[in-house]
Amino acid sequence: MKPTLAITMGDPLGIGPEVVVKALKQDDFHRICHPLVIGDPGILRQTVAGLGFALQIVEVAGPGFEGEPGKIFLLPASFLPLENGLQKLPRDASARASFDCIEKAGRLALAGKIHGIVTGPVNKEAIHRAGIPFRGHTEYLAEISQTEKFAMMLAGERLRVALVTTHIPHGAVAKSLSEEAILNVIEVTNRGLRDFFRIVAPRLGVAALNPHAGEGGLFGNEEGLIAGAVQKALTKGLNVSGPWAADTLFYRAVQGEFDAVVCMYHDQALIPLKLLHFESAVNITLGLPFVRTSVDHGVAYDLAGRGLANPRSLMEAIRLAAQMAVSKLGGRSKE
Amino acid sequence: MKPTLAITMGDPLGIGPEVVVKALKQDDFHRICHPLVIGDPGILRQTVAGLGFALQIVEVAGPGFEGEPGKIFLLPASFLPLENGLQKLPRDASARASFDCIEKAGRLALAGKIHGIVTGPVNKEAIHRAGIPFRGHTEYLAEISQTEKFAMMLAGERLRVALVTTHIPHGAVAKSLSEEAILNVIEVTNRGLRDFFRIVAPRLGVAALNPHAGEGGLFGNEEGLIAGAVQKALTKGLNVSGPWAADTLFYRAVQGEFDAVVCMYHDQALIPLKLLHFESAVNITLGLPFVRTSVDHGVAYDLAGRGLANPRSLMEAIRLAAQMAVSKLGGRSKE
Repeated sequence: MKPTLAITMGDPLGIGPEVVVKALKQDDFHRICHPLVIGDPGILRQTVAGLGFALQIVEVAGPGFEGEPGKIFLLPASFLPLENGLQKLPRDASARASFDCIEKAGRLALAGKIHGIVTGPVNKEAIHRAGIPFRGHTEYLAEISQTEKFAMMLAGERLRVALVTTHIPHGAVAKSLSEEAILNVIEVTNRGLRDFFRIVAPRLGVAALNPHAGEGGLFGNEEGLIAGAVQKALTKGLNVSGPWAADTLFYRAVQGEFDAVVCMYHDQALIPLKLLHFESAVNITLGLPFVRTSVDHGVAYDLAGRGLANPRSLMEAIRLAAQMAVSKLGGRSKE
Repeated sequence: MKPTLAITMGDPLGIGPEVVVKALKQDDFHRICHPLVIGDPGILRQTVAGLGFALQIVEVAGPGFEGEPGKIFLLPASFLPLENGLQKLPRDASARASFDCIEKAGRLALAGKIHGIVTGPVNKEAIHRAGIPFRGHTEYLAEISQTEKFAMMLAGERLRVALVTTHIPHGAVAKSLSEEAILNVIEVTNRGLRDFFRIVAPRLGVAALNPHAGEGGLFGNEEGLIAGAVQKALTKGLNVSGPWAADTLFYRAVQGEFDAVVCMYHDQALIPLKLLHFESAVNITLGLPFVRTSVDHGVAYDLAGRGLANPRSLMEAIRLAAQMAVSKLGGRSKE
């Protein structure tokens, strides 16, 4: 059984449309899923033409098509004015178009019409400026699906990381941590690895917040909160340990000691992940009622329109979403 | 001309004495420097005996000895009671002994009697409990040498990182940053790479503090301070850029774009460094009037006394200190 996956185009001014087109050209994803692109027909046709690809954009009203190589099935979400070319698109309208794709994909997933969403890169700041309050794909999809316990995970071949806090200022991290929030991410990560990655008893390492894990309280004491959450998770039978000094934890995980590292803040997780998996990491939202993966890169405005963008992260995201959806469907059918 | 280097024993309860003895056994450092160990004669003799090494500990009153293989030249700094064995040493006296080595090494360096100090691992918390206020080797050596502008750098073969803040709580980092402190570290790093690493015009990448470099102020605004410091450094003719989003900066540095990364906080620097150089990284204090390197690991109490500790980081630290001292002496003689 092949899952249907929505693939959102991302910000039209960034490399999103290009990596979507390149990904669907370079691999025949119809073998493993029904890829339904959600985006702007004009933008995508111009991107295909700019790249000189022989790909046909077929507009559809939703899932239910029978895929075939050489064709991209597209659910239109916007019709941006293209008379001045891709790089002269109006900024606010482009940002709104990138958000519209996400909204449409979210509705289809909530209605059970698709199995998962793979998202292209957007610019949160541009969406804000266009008047839409938006903290990120993860937070948005959690909100519309009324998911209280969710976590952002990034996964590469050698390292998986899950985040307790995400897109907030560095100075706000310490006061944003709570035993409950940490425990939630531990539990969601544990369940996610079991359901979607078929790891029976996931081994989780939890990172400390402060240098040297606070060195016994000398450099901060949030490690007490973390230790409390680990203790509660142990009581529930989870295979978890920490807080561990963050500067050696990722090395240990890569050496095979942990299936995932639970991190307290964005860069704690993303620095080691991108160092090892610069082009191949996939962003996953765990805890949602549907599968969601994403590229792990940004809009890269400086690269856009030059034909130089690398579709590898999106290709990995589509592949992983298909696997995760099959695992989940398989798991459900056994219940 | 061979430099004289003091090598401090570190915490007697940790792996310091073991890695000192192993390092001096495994390589004949007399070829490149005069290694003067500062430590406790009883501890070191017992460590040598425990490892079954044929090494002679020769007590000296200071520099001026003529080194030879098979001999460790030792300046005694303490005489701890050993009747109950290494693992039953009194904690406070051990912590004080670890500090006494640093103090003795610092005095010799200040008096110009040695060219550099290579430090073994100590436990800051234990030294505190023993009644000595001590924020770390770097801060202590800067204080006694009245060095105002200094920086901690960690160096491995693929990556070098310099730190604007070091051993403070995560939650205190944002308010500890100032344009002046960032500019100081940029300048000290630039000079250090020129003087000690013979890089003519060092290329420095400066990390942002907030995720996505704050994404235009949406997640914090300390990037303004960082940009100000970069601007001033550019005005002074330095080859520097930033603030760059930290999650991709280290990858770029490893790919060859930067000679060093200037980091805002401890784990921002140490996570990528230890991921790439778990056993081989060297800790360097730049800006001091003498050379100072250190192991990049801690006391590892759990490993102590088992003969399993790896001396590689200390060996790299001695080698690099010798090179740095020769570079500095060479530079001085040319003036």
